[in-house]
Amino acid sequence: MHPPQDVKKKPSEQTVPLHNRWHPAVPPVAEVQTGELFRVEMVDFSGGGITKEYTAEDIKFQDASIQNLPLHNRWHPEIPPVAEVKTGEIFRVEMVDWTARAISDDNSALDVKTLDLSTVHYLSGPIRVVDKNGNPAKPGDLLAVEICNLGPLPGDEWGFTAIFDRENGGGFLTDHFPCATKAIWYFEGIYAYSPHIPGVRFPGLTHPGIVGTAPSMELLNIWNERERKLEETGLQSLKLCEVLHSRPLANLPSTKGCVLGKIKEGTPEWERIAREAARTIPGRENGGNCDIKNLSRGSKVYLPVFVDGANLSTGDMHFSQGDGEVAFCGAIEMSGFLELKCEIIRDGMKKYLTPMGPTPLHVNPIFEIGPVEPRFSEWLVFEGISVDESGRQHYLDASVAYKRAVLNAIDYISKFGYSKEQVYLLLSCCPCEGRISGIVDAPNAVATLAIPIAIFDQDIRPKTSDIVLTGPRLVRNPGLPQCSYDGNLPTTKNPCAST
Amino acid sequence: MHPPQDVKKKPSEQTVPLHNRWHPAVPPVAEVQTGELFRVEMVDFSGGGITKEYTAEDIKFQDASIQNLPLHNRWHPEIPPVAEVKTGEIFRVEMVDWTARAISDDNSALDVKTLDLSTVHYLSGPIRVVDKNGNPAKPGDLLAVEICNLGPLPGDEWGFTAIFDRENGGGFLTDHFPCATKAIWYFEGIYAYSPHIPGVRFPGLTHPGIVGTAPSMELLNIWNERERKLEETGLQSLKLCEVLHSRPLANLPSTKGCVLGKIKEGTPEWERIAREAARTIPGRENGGNCDIKNLSRGSKVYLPVFVDGANLSTGDMHFSQGDGEVAFCGAIEMSGFLELKCEIIRDGMKKYLTPMGPTPLHVNPIFEIGPVEPRFSEWLVFEGISVDESGRQHYLDASVAYKRAVLNAIDYISKFGYSKEQVYLLLSCCPCEGRISGIVDAPNAVATLAIPIAIFDQDIRPKTSDIVLTGPRLVRNPGLPQCSYDGNLPTTKNPCAST
Amino acid sequence: MHPPQDVKKKPSEQTVPLHNRWHPAVPPVAEVQTGELFRVEMVDFSGGGITKEYTAEDIKFQDASIQNLPLHNRWHPEIPPVAEVKTGEIFRVEMVDWTARAISDDNSALDVKTLDLSTVHYLSGPIRVVDKNGNPAKPGDLLAVEICNLGPLPGDEWGFTAIFDRENGGGFLTDHFPCATKAIWYFEGIYAYSPHIPGVRFPGLTHPGIVGTAPSMELLNIWNERERKLEETGLQSLKLCEVLHSRPLANLPSTKGCVLGKIKEGTPEWERIAREAARTIPGRENGGNCDIKNLSRGSKVYLPVFVDGANLSTGDMHFSQGDGEVAFCGAIEMSGFLELKCEIIRDGMKKYLTPMGPTPLHVNPIFEIGPVEPRFSEWLVFEGISVDESGRQHYLDASVAYKRAVLNAIDYISKFGYSKEQVYLLLSCCPCEGRISGIVDAPNAVATLAIPIAIFDQDIRPKTSDIVLTGPRLVRNPGLPQCSYDGNLPTTKNPCAST
Amino acid sequence: MHPPQDVKKKPSEQTVPLHNRWHPAVPPVAEVQTGELFRVEMVDFSGGGITKEYTAEDIKFQDASIQNLPLHNRWHPEIPPVAEVKTGEIFRVEMVDWTARAISDDNSALDVKTLDLSTVHYLSGPIRVVDKNGNPAKPGDLLAVEICNLGPLPGDEWGFTAIFDRENGGGFLTDHFPCATKAIWYFEGIYAYSPHIPGVRFPGLTHPGIVGTAPSMELLNIWNERERKLEETGLQSLKLCEVLHSRPLANLPSTKGCVLGKIKEGTPEWERIAREAARTIPGRENGGNCDIKNLSRGSKVYLPVFVDGANLSTGDMHFSQGDGEVAFCGAIEMSGFLELKCEIIRDGMKKYLTPMGPTPLHVNPIFEIGPVEPRFSEWLVFEGISVDESGRQHYLDASVAYKRAVLNAIDYISKFGYSKEQVYLLLSCCPCEGRISGIVDAPNAVATLAIPIAIFDQDIRPKTSDIVLTGPRLVRNPGLPQCSYDGNLPTTKNPCAST
Repeated sequence: MHPPQDVKKKPSEQTVPLHNRWHPAVPPVAEVQTGELFRVEMVDFSGGGITKEYTAEDIKFQDASIQNLPLHNRWHPEIPPVAEVKTGEIFRVEMVDWTARAISDDNSALDVKTLDLSTVHYLSGPIRVVDKNGNPAKPGDLLAVEICNLGPLPGDEWGFTAIFDRENGGGFLTDHFPCATKAIWYFEGIYAYSPHIPGVRFPGLTHPGIVGTAPSMELLNIWNERERKLEETGLQSLKLCEVLHSRPLANLPSTKGCVLGKIKEGTPEWERIAREAARTIPGRENGGNCDIKNLSRGSKVYLPVFVDGANLSTGDMHFSQGDGEVAFCGAIEMSGFLELKCEIIRDGMKKYLTPMGPTPLHVNPIFEIGPVEPRFSEWLVFEGISVDESGRQHYLDASVAYKRAVLNAIDYISKFGYSKEQVYLLLSCCPCEGRISGIVDAPNAVATLAIPIAIFDQDIRPKTSDIVLTGPRLVRNPGLPQCSYDGNLPTTKNPCAST
Repeated sequence: MHPPQDVKKKPSEQTVPLHNRWHPAVPPVAEVQTGELFRVEMVDFSGGGITKEYTAEDIKFQDASIQNLPLHNRWHPEIPPVAEVKTGEIFRVEMVDWTARAISDDNSALDVKTLDLSTVHYLSGPIRVVDKNGNPAKPGDLLAVEICNLGPLPGDEWGFTAIFDRENGGGFLTDHFPCATKAIWYFEGIYAYSPHIPGVRFPGLTHPGIVGTAPSMELLNIWNERERKLEETGLQSLKLCEVLHSRPLANLPSTKGCVLGKIKEGTPEWERIAREAARTIPGRENGGNCDIKNLSRGSKVYLPVFVDGANLSTGDMHFSQGDGEVAFCGAIEMSGFLELKCEIIRDGMKKYLTPMGPTPLHVNPIFEIGPVEPRFSEWLVFEGISVDESGRQHYLDASVAYKRAVLNAIDYISKFGYSKEQVYLLLSCCPCEGRISGIVDAPNAVATLAIPIAIFDQDIRPKTSDIVLTGPRLVRNPGLPQCSYDGNLPTTKNPCAST
Repeated sequence: MHPPQDVKKKPSEQTVPLHNRWHPAVPPVAEVQTGELFRVEMVDFSGGGITKEYTAEDIKFQDASIQNLPLHNRWHPEIPPVAEVKTGEIFRVEMVDWTARAISDDNSALDVKTLDLSTVHYLSGPIRVVDKNGNPAKPGDLLAVEICNLGPLPGDEWGFTAIFDRENGGGFLTDHFPCATKAIWYFEGIYAYSPHIPGVRFPGLTHPGIVGTAPSMELLNIWNERERKLEETGLQSLKLCEVLHSRPLANLPSTKGCVLGKIKEGTPEWERIAREAARTIPGRENGGNCDIKNLSRGSKVYLPVFVDGANLSTGDMHFSQGDGEVAFCGAIEMSGFLELKCEIIRDGMKKYLTPMGPTPLHVNPIFEIGPVEPRFSEWLVFEGISVDESGRQHYLDASVAYKRAVLNAIDYISKFGYSKEQVYLLLSCCPCEGRISGIVDAPNAVATLAIPIAIFDQDIRPKTSDIVLTGPRLVRNPGLPQCSYDGNLPTTKNPCAST
Repeated sequence: MHPPQDVKKKPSEQTVPLHNRWHPAVPPVAEVQTGELFRVEMVDFSGGGITKEYTAEDIKFQDASIQNLPLHNRWHPEIPPVAEVKTGEIFRVEMVDWTARAISDDNSALDVKTLDLSTVHYLSGPIRVVDKNGNPAKPGDLLAVEICNLGPLPGDEWGFTAIFDRENGGGFLTDHFPCATKAIWYFEGIYAYSPHIPGVRFPGLTHPGIVGTAPSMELLNIWNERERKLEETGLQSLKLCEVLHSRPLANLPSTKGCVLGKIKEGTPEWERIAREAARTIPGRENGGNCDIKNLSRGSKVYLPVFVDGANLSTGDMHFSQGDGEVAFCGAIEMSGFLELKCEIIRDGMKKYLTPMGPTPLHVNPIFEIGPVEPRFSEWLVFEGISVDESGRQHYLDASVAYKRAVLNAIDYISKFGYSKEQVYLLLSCCPCEGRISGIVDAPNAVATLAIPIAIFDQDIRPKTSDIVLTGPRLVRNPGLPQCSYDGNLPTTKNPCAST
């Protein structure tokens, strides 16, 4: 039995210099031998102090991915594998959160506001997959990856959800909520709760936001070309760019912040690859940052293989996320582990996938859902149609419809004692479902957002009784960590709301 | 006990003239007294004949809505109620299918190709709702409508699913599937099966496609104005109009085909209202044609009230529908009944809804899901990203992403012995779920389509065994009723598919 | 649209004699022609009156089973079929409640106290099943019966739940609750509520309590012999007979109250069969009164066939029932209909069933559960162990353990404003689950009773807060219709309870 | 990232003496320093060898519970707590399997046959619970224990399921299956599979078989007295003792094999307590060995408190278990961990529990089910009635009915290529549900056993097609590890089965 632990204590001062970023450049403050028992004292944000004993072994374990095996934050066929696995083997992958610990468990959103987005997402991998005879997965195969188990790293059971500043990342509703904002979540086994969003607690549908194979050079070129075109002409040609205000439209390759695993920075090879390698922000043909909340325990994803060995990478672990991950850094972001098992379906791309585009590479992964998702039986559902906040009619636009559904839900739930930022964060990370309900009844797409009622400690349903009791209308912790928005882009106010 | 019935018999000739549309203008071929027992012989499509005995009472029952209470197919505040209900009362509403029986249970898609869309959707109502003291629902109230029960009309247990011709209605994938196509479904209690799409059978998540309140004149004007603007300028300003090919962009008011309930055609009042009344095609602030498949048994929808008495109307019954209803007439369309119970939440719009637009009328309904939805535990899921078939990158466009996910699913399932049209119809009407999985990872939205595996009589999952068995690859009934496409709009071929 | 109906009105006097039992012997008060429209006025229990118009057709429809096709209330191979169905056909079976309307929708439990149990259960059938070539099901076959749909009879949407008097039927807890007691339930579509048990409302998991095939003479003899032995020696040899106090131990064949379908009472054949025919109370090898609540919509039961044609009978419709049906007449008993489809598995008994007893007839049905059961995600669970109320230890006795779990649950829920009789009735009819959790840890069996929390309008979970709020402790309608217990059997009082 | 591990390798010979029991008395074969890296080579059952590197730290971690904190295997108020926790704290409890590693991961059932049952179950605890002010839980309080998380111990992901010899433990069907038999299960994250029962794989509903509080001396005396009475007179007075053949009827206190935590063996105190302390086999008023499979992640159990500090103990971790745990050692037994959180409800026993017996101590725990149980939507269900294998009629006996249902299921599933012992083990450990369906229809209780279909790699449903395909009828690994039965108690053969 472990001694019972009091997870949350008050902070105090330290006698050695502190740091609040996790980065190779931070100098060590002490040195320990493997196996040596030593003691670390640390502050937390509110005044007390905790004591935890580590051995060097423990720390190696916690950060094996950083210290022993290099990470990468770009997609490129030439990033060399850091490990090899055989089909049928169970193996364990550990990972830092997508920012590599740049966001702290504290009461300030400054780290969110100033996060250097050129360095994300830190991925574990690539992992080369071979069959039982040692023959690698080949382009044209399908790689079946079963997620046998996953979770937070032991001893690191917390995560964060954030709204990014409109000038630095933004999000689905950045025109409504331009300020950097943060909420911290603590885990109690399967449950998460946040001191910043009181009155809710829910079981996590934990999943990796990113799982993908390496692209071939041909596929990489397709990505870079089409995204460059969007970046150049999107604002002129695409109405959605007016309605969804996150910028830039696309994140093109950039050497700034680039991390390429075993390829050493400063070499000519690094320079070339860094200029070509795709950013990890969007999901693409190789899977990648699809942020599909149902890729959880027991699910199995079938990824197309574009390079020898498949070169599987994964990262961006989410304790929980709502469909759409609307606040951008909207899931409960955390470090974590995966236990995976791979199979190779030879020639599976031809057998099972049909490209939907000009080349045979224009395919998408498919997956099966696992059997242990949290069960909810009561849902409150918000509708949205493709008419935007200014009253303009869009044509069958599910993104606009979903934006309206999410805005509707935020306003509704804010009536039960929450600030709108709290609800925006909550709908980003709780297990809510975003549906495309109707996509054919021109001119309106209808999208719906379904929220499980059981996550609240009060009944949020409308009351049909003549005397409507909407609860004590507690202002539930207005002190969400938040920074000011210092830019001058116009914001969208609900045109007819009184508040 | 009823005598067991052989539902499907062979057709034969009739001695009285037949008709294949259900419309007041079709002249009667015989006259019967109430209560009189008489005999009707009828043909069916394949050569035999069936005999069914009706009494006049039965027919009155089947078509009460048409014969006793007039229907309407437009939204307007001045369409008078046909009935009044009190809050707390259970009442029953019966309805014809949305085409008022213009589509027949036969082996030809000609009726689909030539359907006069100016006459849809035929709605039952309006129903005026008053409280227990007789005071009507008032503008600003919320009308809570509980769907206590619903189903097909006894003796009429069948429905249809159709792809509309690209020149007449179209659908989500009309550029891929321009031909009018039809599938007939028969119901065995909770289950539906189709001789046109063999090998699938599923329980219906039955729901009304349309439930809504009457708009006020102010709201009606908002609708007409914004949709007129779209119709006039959409092709120039909205990129989606290039990608989603259904036309027209909006359906503006038109006297052609207009049915206005108790208002007599030919009167000046009729002329005026018909020119103003909104078409029922899109879902809007009043609810309407939202096609939300989860509005089923035990659900409760909270509708804003815009006119005295609320003037609730409902129609477009679906035995089952997939999220998106992608083939447009994509649900299993049927006649049916609802058992409803209403409550009035006084001032509920202010209490619970926040307008998301320039006026206090820019709101949307909310609803709760019922407890008896069909349960499935195994799902195969298809992903799509916002890159279209030509390889163009769209910006966070969930509609494009969902189109790609649906196309992916169609191609995949067609490998198991189906034609693509069969799968397109199937995904329109089976209980599949369409999700907005990621909407923030610029430039790609990620949408997913989840299909319950248990509806198939074969295992459609990818096989990871070295020897892949994809089944006997039966061509499952290629004889889907279909018409040629005679227009000359270009179609979208999968650019790199071999077939 | 049907005119909205006010289902519950006040009673008044009638000018023709009334009756409060449904039995062939009640003389007609009027005669109508088929199809003739006529008017019936009727009383209800509380003073007002309602008016409903019937046609003779309607009445035929409502009570077809009684008037056109004779019922039966015994199992015997020689009861002739009343109908024949082919495999693959959907057919509809209507049925009266198990008492054939002997229990009224009123505020008195006198009908429960005095019910003549010799006449139950009234079954619809037998139905002879033949294959598509007209060959009947044969002994040794399996009859697969799919329950495609079911529900209450339209216009008759109510039911009753009752505790039987200890001298007349009893129940699982008859030593605790010896008085005849009744609760009436009204249906609102999928939901039931009772004025006698306020504060609960739940969706029904509707099912027939009885579905079975006719026994062969050999099987019938086995039944009669083993039950006679129990009746004669059980009190001496079986400890459970002391703990479970319902009497008689078995119901042996009796000519009193016997109804044998097409066989005319008074004939020698009738006399002989009535003396041999098994009572319908217990479930047996042929299925019969198994009271399995999951035999609902979409389920499929595989029944062994013992006689030519299978001779399927069904009855005892339950709108809802908890596992165990503990109050004996504990389900929500109602009239109703089934839509069924049969298949014959030739030689299926040998293929799929293995007898567990001295003859090849000692088999049991198997079944598959349907996909639309009501979903609940939160349950409160009560444990019981095989120690009885006197503190005696029983050996791995799941019946004793379940009795204790049910008693625990009754006491617990009664703390939330209910009388114990109300909870006893509620746990008999709500969709609670009774489990055999542990059956090997000598000497205690552990049984559990799981109650869905969502059926209550208050939160019945224990509260861990320091200040425990157990709600307003309303006495929720103590006026449950109840009779006195006039017998002199000792009752079991909770030995240490204060009340 | 951990290096990928090949979990199952071939055995080889060792140069240091081996042992196949996990017990403090086994002498060490080597000594290592904390943190020292060393190498262990070990055999497995089939001939090869594996190499695994441990540090001393790892071993400390694996067996912390044994080495640092003493275990206990009896219930007694005077066993001192080994740890103290505060309410609201999350704490972690690790535990050995119930036999403390006496059963090995090998191909012989000899360890099962010869297991010394006097030493079970090894429990972790007692844990003293105090509130935030340091005041302990008091007799009369309720202790709410939330199971926040649980699972196998990392690096120890395997378990076993066993049939015990009829002379040593037995089981629910020991008269049918008297031989000691074993199956080993390996875990792949949430899934378990067994080389001994091929063709099945299922997600675990992991739970502790035992969670309980310490009894007071008064309660302990009640237990000992009533169980002694059963042991002395049960065979004469209880019919079930003839039908359920496990012996002894009860396990009375015994100093043999007794382990009492911090109390040193050999002291007078140890002798006294060992003679009084109750065995842990049955579940009782304090919870204990209830083997309730739904006490899994996210559930919360409310335990009565009988001594100061509650003295919570837990053990007997199950990766998965079917209702009833029919083979006795029928769950997948494993070592594991729990993450728990406690609350104290002051005076909760009086507030929430009503005693069902002669003293206020005759209560039972209640619990809430967690939200992440594995989901299955298709079940095949077997019925049983209270007629035993000899054809005798029992009176409303749910144990007999369940025995018949289990026997029916075993025979049925054995038709799909399994031996009956394999199915008996499978039904003990897979997530099947055992229900008391009818308990009032004298003389037959009806019990049902529902098996999730998805755990099999073949479709086990009966086929209604004329040509019945029951699969290739593979004999699925008849080589289940099994010992002969050397006793001479009569066994029960299915009297009319051909095999």
